[in-house]
Amino acid sequence: MEILVYRHGIPKIIEGKTAEDLPELLQDKSALIWVDMEKPTEADERVLLDVFKFHPLTVEDCRENRHYPKVEEFEDYIYFIVHGVTADTSSDRFNTIELDGFLGPNYVITYHHDMFRSINNVKQLLRTTPVACQRGPAFLLHQILDQVVDFYSPVLDDFDERIDRLEEDIFTLKRPNNEILSVIMDLKRSVLRLRRISGKQMDILHRMSRGEFALIPDEMRPFYRDVYDHLVRVVDLAESYRDLISGSLEAYLSVVSNRLNEIMKVLTIFSAIMLPLTFIAGVYGMNFENMPELHSRYGYYAVWIIMIIVAVGMLLFFKKRGWIGGSSREETPEG
Amino acid sequence: MEILVYRHGIPKIIEGKTAEDLPELLQDKSALIWVDMEKPTEADERVLLDVFKFHPLTVEDCRENRHYPKVEEFEDYIYFIVHGVTADTSSDRFNTIELDGFLGPNYVITYHHDMFRSINNVKQLLRTTPVACQRGPAFLLHQILDQVVDFYSPVLDDFDERIDRLEEDIFTLKRPNNEILSVIMDLKRSVLRLRRISGKQMDILHRMSRGEFALIPDEMRPFYRDVYDHLVRVVDLAESYRDLISGSLEAYLSVVSNRLNEIMKVLTIFSAIMLPLTFIAGVYGMNFENMPELHSRYGYYAVWIIMIIVAVGMLLFFKKRGWIGGSSREETPEG
Amino acid sequence: MEILVYRHGIPKIIEGKTAEDLPELLQDKSALIWVDMEKPTEADERVLLDVFKFHPLTVEDCRENRHYPKVEEFEDYIYFIVHGVTADTSSDRFNTIELDGFLGPNYVITYHHDMFRSINNVKQLLRTTPVACQRGPAFLLHQILDQVVDFYSPVLDDFDERIDRLEEDIFTLKRPNNEILSVIMDLKRSVLRLRRISGKQMDILHRMSRGEFALIPDEMRPFYRDVYDHLVRVVDLAESYRDLISGSLEAYLSVVSNRLNEIMKVLTIFSAIMLPLTFIAGVYGMNFENMPELHSRYGYYAVWIIMIIVAVGMLLFFKKRGWIGGSSREETPEG
Amino acid sequence: MEILVYRHGIPKIIEGKTAEDLPELLQDKSALIWVDMEKPTEADERVLLDVFKFHPLTVEDCRENRHYPKVEEFEDYIYFIVHGVTADTSSDRFNTIELDGFLGPNYVITYHHDMFRSINNVKQLLRTTPVACQRGPAFLLHQILDQVVDFYSPVLDDFDERIDRLEEDIFTLKRPNNEILSVIMDLKRSVLRLRRISGKQMDILHRMSRGEFALIPDEMRPFYRDVYDHLVRVVDLAESYRDLISGSLEAYLSVVSNRLNEIMKVLTIFSAIMLPLTFIAGVYGMNFENMPELHSRYGYYAVWIIMIIVAVGMLLFFKKRGWIGGSSREETPEG
Amino acid sequence: MEILVYRHGIPKIIEGKTAEDLPELLQDKSALIWVDMEKPTEADERVLLDVFKFHPLTVEDCRENRHYPKVEEFEDYIYFIVHGVTADTSSDRFNTIELDGFLGPNYVITYHHDMFRSINNVKQLLRTTPVACQRGPAFLLHQILDQVVDFYSPVLDDFDERIDRLEEDIFTLKRPNNEILSVIMDLKRSVLRLRRISGKQMDILHRMSRGEFALIPDEMRPFYRDVYDHLVRVVDLAESYRDLISGSLEAYLSVVSNRLNEIMKVLTIFSAIMLPLTFIAGVYGMNFENMPELHSRYGYYAVWIIMIIVAVGMLLFFKKRGWIGGSSREETPEG
Repeated sequence: MEILVYRHGIPKIIEGKTAEDLPELLQDKSALIWVDMEKPTEADERVLLDVFKFHPLTVEDCRENRHYPKVEEFEDYIYFIVHGVTADTSSDRFNTIELDGFLGPNYVITYHHDMFRSINNVKQLLRTTPVACQRGPAFLLHQILDQVVDFYSPVLDDFDERIDRLEEDIFTLKRPNNEILSVIMDLKRSVLRLRRISGKQMDILHRMSRGEFALIPDEMRPFYRDVYDHLVRVVDLAESYRDLISGSLEAYLSVVSNRLNEIMKVLTIFSAIMLPLTFIAGVYGMNFENMPELHSRYGYYAVWIIMIIVAVGMLLFFKKRGWIGGSSREETPEG
Repeated sequence: MEILVYRHGIPKIIEGKTAEDLPELLQDKSALIWVDMEKPTEADERVLLDVFKFHPLTVEDCRENRHYPKVEEFEDYIYFIVHGVTADTSSDRFNTIELDGFLGPNYVITYHHDMFRSINNVKQLLRTTPVACQRGPAFLLHQILDQVVDFYSPVLDDFDERIDRLEEDIFTLKRPNNEILSVIMDLKRSVLRLRRISGKQMDILHRMSRGEFALIPDEMRPFYRDVYDHLVRVVDLAESYRDLISGSLEAYLSVVSNRLNEIMKVLTIFSAIMLPLTFIAGVYGMNFENMPELHSRYGYYAVWIIMIIVAVGMLLFFKKRGWIGGSSREETPEG
Repeated sequence: MEILVYRHGIPKIIEGKTAEDLPELLQDKSALIWVDMEKPTEADERVLLDVFKFHPLTVEDCRENRHYPKVEEFEDYIYFIVHGVTADTSSDRFNTIELDGFLGPNYVITYHHDMFRSINNVKQLLRTTPVACQRGPAFLLHQILDQVVDFYSPVLDDFDERIDRLEEDIFTLKRPNNEILSVIMDLKRSVLRLRRISGKQMDILHRMSRGEFALIPDEMRPFYRDVYDHLVRVVDLAESYRDLISGSLEAYLSVVSNRLNEIMKVLTIFSAIMLPLTFIAGVYGMNFENMPELHSRYGYYAVWIIMIIVAVGMLLFFKKRGWIGGSSREETPEG
Repeated sequence: MEILVYRHGIPKIIEGKTAEDLPELLQDKSALIWVDMEKPTEADERVLLDVFKFHPLTVEDCRENRHYPKVEEFEDYIYFIVHGVTADTSSDRFNTIELDGFLGPNYVITYHHDMFRSINNVKQLLRTTPVACQRGPAFLLHQILDQVVDFYSPVLDDFDERIDRLEEDIFTLKRPNNEILSVIMDLKRSVLRLRRISGKQMDILHRMSRGEFALIPDEMRPFYRDVYDHLVRVVDLAESYRDLISGSLEAYLSVVSNRLNEIMKVLTIFSAIMLPLTFIAGVYGMNFENMPELHSRYGYYAVWIIMIIVAVGMLLFFKKRGWIGGSSREETPEG
Repeated sequence: MEILVYRHGIPKIIEGKTAEDLPELLQDKSALIWVDMEKPTEADERVLLDVFKFHPLTVEDCRENRHYPKVEEFEDYIYFIVHGVTADTSSDRFNTIELDGFLGPNYVITYHHDMFRSINNVKQLLRTTPVACQRGPAFLLHQILDQVVDFYSPVLDDFDERIDRLEEDIFTLKRPNNEILSVIMDLKRSVLRLRRISGKQMDILHRMSRGEFALIPDEMRPFYRDVYDHLVRVVDLAESYRDLISGSLEAYLSVVSNRLNEIMKVLTIFSAIMLPLTFIAGVYGMNFENMPELHSRYGYYAVWIIMIIVAVGMLLFFKKRGWIGGSSREETPEG
């Protein structure tokens, strides 16, 4: 548990306070207290229950990872769950991390099992410009949420890039392979997840910005609306990514289907040329005693000529059908 | 019919009361009475009608399995239908079981044709810590509903596991077989059913938690909201499972389609190599008198060389097209 | 036109009244009059216009089959259109039949071109227990609607059975045939129609049960809500049937697609085994003078051995690919 | 511009008035004036602006074809755009025609670039029974709209017929041809368009019938609701047509897919029978010196017997698989 | 920064004012000031913050391209973001350009990084007919927005044309090629984007036209509603384009599928004719000593006759199946 205290008129953040100092600090209505609990212990939870007297159900909610953001108003505090995301570089996916918190008349509590880079950023910011605290706990909370939401951007940019790469892969694919398919499926799943997660955060921020909670005063609403707007854009982008990926799947299936057509054309052309030639050769391989052609001096050469005519005829037939020829460049991805 | 009675100040649940004692018990406004009817008899129904004077339509609703949850407010009681689920281990499916009930000013009635493990859990709990009853019938009902909803989790975990197994099956499938297909179809149906059922329960709990009913006092609302939140997460999970399974079906169809491409490629490669060779052999099987090559000393060997060149040429052609070669490892699931 | 009159205190339904008696009967506020017009004549319509003074547009609506249920409130009566269904045994489909009606302060009028078994049931019921009329016209109307909706159940049960049969057909299908396809299409269409029809009835009953109409007093609302609940379940079932049938279509398409894979595998295996063998035979059918193998004593037998090796090699190749072998039982529906 | 005037007590429509008479006519509050502008000139527009003093934007809306119906209330008049449809017999499609109009305290103005048969019908009606005007301008407008909407019915009937014809075509199709496909696409597009157009009209009529506009008095509302109900049925029908056509597309694709299976089966059966026979013939075409069978007296006949056994065996194999045989009648559309 | 000032009674736009004159100008309540900032500098932003005292968050929003339109009301001004589109001729796509702006009691500010042809049009208009300013800032803003939305039309027309061209391409396609596919995908994406963008603008204009903002007086609402109506039509058109393109994709896939059927038919016909003939030739190529036919004088000719009969028989068989023949014209796109 890390406690940061700001006092009006004192241009410095006071640090180093412990849980024991909290009851006294809370009495001082002119102070702004931020209690950040990273990887909280049982003692920290006791503080929530005994010092702050939060509803036992909310503390239980904190302890468990709930996977669903919410904001609830109680008599003199607001409890919220929001989620941050971190691009998981190793596996091309992203993780969600849960941030629980409380907003009171003169305090903000953040509670999280995972490290939040955005929270560390805000702490750093406060240490350098403590004056930011002057606008009260709702403004501090806004700054935290703003930072949390800012970390959605790299994840989105990552998608942008991966979808671009995917589309190129699809149209230049040498073979229909299951690898592209699983990339599509993975991306789709991730984007749907991002859409879902950011949509839920958006609902929370919407409620915070519409003046529903007394603890978020009206002059703070533009700031929360700003975070909300950011989430609206994230959701909007996630939706357009989803459409792009759906399009990619359709394109992939079509490309595979075109590929099958290609294969079948090759087979048909080969068969249609070779089968008649083999038949002709077979005819003159028959052992009838009376086959005048066999004794003709130029019979053998004549047969070759016939066979060449047949082969060329088939080629022309397929060329007319548009199955082979000059435009093959366009139709085969290998062209 | 099993009757549990709690009286303020008496730290013990009184059991063993019968239907005859009910009229008297109900007069005692300081008592909390829980009547649990498992596999109810006609006599039990008469109690509902004659002692509690419930609306005949609600008692009829109790008797029949209605497959649709609801909550209705009457003058001095609330009637509800909710559903529990039990993982049916034998058949990879899950069952729904119906729980009807009434909440009155000083009683809770539960009515069910099937055994509810969650209800037995609550009874056990009350026997050990009867003080839980002190908060009144709405709290008791909350505890019952909370337990009922808790039993959704194993079913969800079961899905999680089965979808994982399914996805592995799809990408390693040796053959497109109808078995995988029916697994997908079964899972999809089950998840849709779960989505449907939990969504309906969610609506009921939403109404209970938003202060619509006078019999559920305001201080009880956070507890009902907690159950509601749990159902929201169940619905959310069921929805993401549904998306996963839809993705699986698409993946399966694509894998089958890739498989067809594979088969056609094998056929085409074989035909394209063998047909020309057979044709060449056919040519020199002809019986023309005048075929100079036949009399050449090395004609036979020359033909073999030509045939090898043709075969290698075809192989190179297909390799260039990317149909065979080093990367085949990636494209065939057997690789 | 058939008129049934109930008078308070008289435990018998009075029948046999004619249109001429109506003006007088309507004056008697203590009577409950039910006018049932089956296959109505023009005279009947005149009664509606002249005796009851209904809005001409509603009478016109009665005359025509409107295919859209509605309920409209006028100054002192309610006009409604609802629909019943009858399972059409001959053609595996179901028909909808329209019931128009009016509810007034002391009368109920039902107007229908087709025979309604549910209406006959209610008449029978009234004759045996006339006391049911004591609760007024809204209760009588409830009984009629309840009966009409009860006749949805056999149609639903019919679907249940047909979908079960369909699913079995799909997975055991010997050939992809258009018959199964048209069964699926027919079922889908019927279920969508049922969903549509029952959904519209549901809306009507919803409006009737929420206390919108003064002629349906509050104490009658649970009864209408009961009919509404029944329709909610019908709609819910129809929706799950629709999902089942959509799943069936997907399964059918997949089974057909798997079947194509099977066919292609058979073709490929045959071609891949036979083409090389034919080629080998072709080689030794060549007529070169100098082919040492031909003069070898055991050449013929050696060729047979080579051909057997090739054939077995191909079989092993396909077995390794999983195209043939022990598991074929699972992958082919005929297995 | 054609002007029809009705005056209370005068059982005749006065015609032949011109734009110059309008200011005077409008003063007469007991008159009902209908100004119908077909293919309006600039002079007509000046009348709208100068005599009636309509908002310039609405007059501009009139001039252009807006493709979007609307109704707007101004201080003392209502401006509306609705659309009629006409079955375009030559091309199996239908056209929409725009009707702009104004409803004032004692006048109705209709403005349209195309000929409206429905408007001509209403004029004819007024001339024969002028008394219809007695109920005021809102009733006159209702009559016009009623006629406009009545002309949707032939278009709907046309769809009904075409979909029936389409479904028959699909299941009896001799070949998968692109013609059926473009019929489906055309129908789908037309139905979606009809759904769209009638849906928008429905919204307009809904607003007119719910008492939103002071110029449409309450006692006129049942008449507008009647037109609205008609449009509800049109939308409902269009939606079920859309479902039917979607089903047709699925059926068509399935039939094409079944057809491919048929073709592949024929190919496979032919190949599987012919390839082994050709191989056997090839074996005995080899030129080995030492081939005992060749010298056997009945070798040739024995080979024929073997070949017949192989052929029959293959046929039995495919019959067992269900690919050929008695039931082929059902599976092939040509049967 | 370009400043245009209109003063009541002065029939000329005053230009050439600079940022320094602004404070004074703003005091003059009878003036209408339009400040257009194209490619704004930091000094311009300072003006927004220091002279106009706009909320810092809105100025930050201006600076960044936000990709999401909005309108926000502050105490004495409205801030909005809307988007224009420009057809990007080089790449068959279209671009969106962002316009930020403020509407105050006597000023309009437009702020944009890109050149807006619509804004230049409005400036030109004002210079020629300054009287347009007489109706106040809300009317000026309406004119700007009207022009911005007018530029959506060429983009829509462009789509219309491209979809027409696409549909022709699909049905006359010589080969299933990935080019058509990527055209479809591109179009779909662009139309979805246009639908999205215009939908968002529509929401903004809806809010502006429904009287939500005090700065847009009631008499201005018809003008904003006019712009809104225009956007409704744009959205409607974009939706119908989307449907058309979805239909195109389905058509394309079907055409590709029909093409595969064509290819397979050709292959099957060739194989089925050639394989039996080759077999017959093979039979009489066997070297049995005792083959009576070989010694027959007309055996060779008899075999030819048999082979012709077989070939004709196969052709008739396929003709009966409808695979070849007179109607091939219709079924093949090459016809």
